[in-house]
Amino acid sequence: MDVYQCIRSRRTVREFKPDPVPEDVILKILQAARWAPSSSNTQAWHFIVIQDRNTLTTLGEICSQGRFIGQAPMAIAIVMENAPRPQLDAGRALQQMELMAWSQGVGTCFAGVRDPAQQVAVKELLGIAEEMELITVLPFGYPAEGPRKKGTPRKPMEEIAHRERFGQPYR
Amino acid sequence: MDVYQCIRSRRTVREFKPDPVPEDVILKILQAARWAPSSSNTQAWHFIVIQDRNTLTTLGEICSQGRFIGQAPMAIAIVMENAPRPQLDAGRALQQMELMAWSQGVGTCFAGVRDPAQQVAVKELLGIAEEMELITVLPFGYPAEGPRKKGTPRKPMEEIAHRERFGQPYR
Repeated sequence: MDVYQCIRSRRTVREFKPDPVPEDVILKILQAARWAPSSSNTQAWHFIVIQDRNTLTTLGEICSQGRFIGQAPMAIAIVMENAPRPQLDAGRALQQMELMAWSQGVGTCFAGVRDPAQQVAVKELLGIAEEMELITVLPFGYPAEGPRKKGTPRKPMEEIAHRERFGQPYR
Repeated sequence: MDVYQCIRSRRTVREFKPDPVPEDVILKILQAARWAPSSSNTQAWHFIVIQDRNTLTTLGEICSQGRFIGQAPMAIAIVMENAPRPQLDAGRALQQMELMAWSQGVGTCFAGVRDPAQQVAVKELLGIAEEMELITVLPFGYPAEGPRKKGTPRKPMEEIAHRERFGQPYR
């Protein structure tokens, strides 16, 4: 899929078909993460691929903002270890993962795991050391049938883009 | 350009040709940022497009980790305003910008502006309010001629990818 078309057509997906994500697609998603740039090339990330039905169900129960994880055929947890810029680097990797997945027909939705009790529970479930930073658990799957979603509205370009100085709209 | 090919071939670019980045390419880069997903769809971002030669030169002087900005034909500053997850959301937008640019033959390099004195100087230069969060100034341009770069090495997949639980290598 063309880059422009992929970025333009991408939608957040929270309802998945039960069909498994093929191993070659999972590998492409992991490669997209691995090929992402990172601060001073630290590559301070870990990716845990979860396909076990019971683990996915439990993750959906723990993550109150990501119940849909429980219905996904697969999820990837992103964990940062001693990263100079954990959130920024995770964001860059996860966006490459999302676009690669979408180009293969597979969708995802960011699920934050910010609540301290949820962090502890997910780390225990997945064997993640306490001192590591768990960023998200990303569910992946083929979008469930239904009318094609319109996508969430965006602010007008002139509200967010400026020319030369803040406040001079880019037109 | 195909998504896989774009992600696979992307390289960080610090040396640019003097050729300007055409307006239609700049618009595509801004659209890629605008179409990025954000936490609770807050879209708490601003993008300042800088093409003025004097401003670019000054930015290169201020940003000690991004001297190359001074040689670029264009740069885009990313600024977050009241964002629940400023670094993560900026990372997602910037990665879409980088891939869109690369698909058009244009490269960039992340330049952090972390030093407080540099933050103040850039904000003053670009008219950014003190309370906003300046994430980066991204230079953009066509890569200068030279042998095609090999790309920075990556950790082996089994070191960063795990199956079901942390520590069980994904093979």
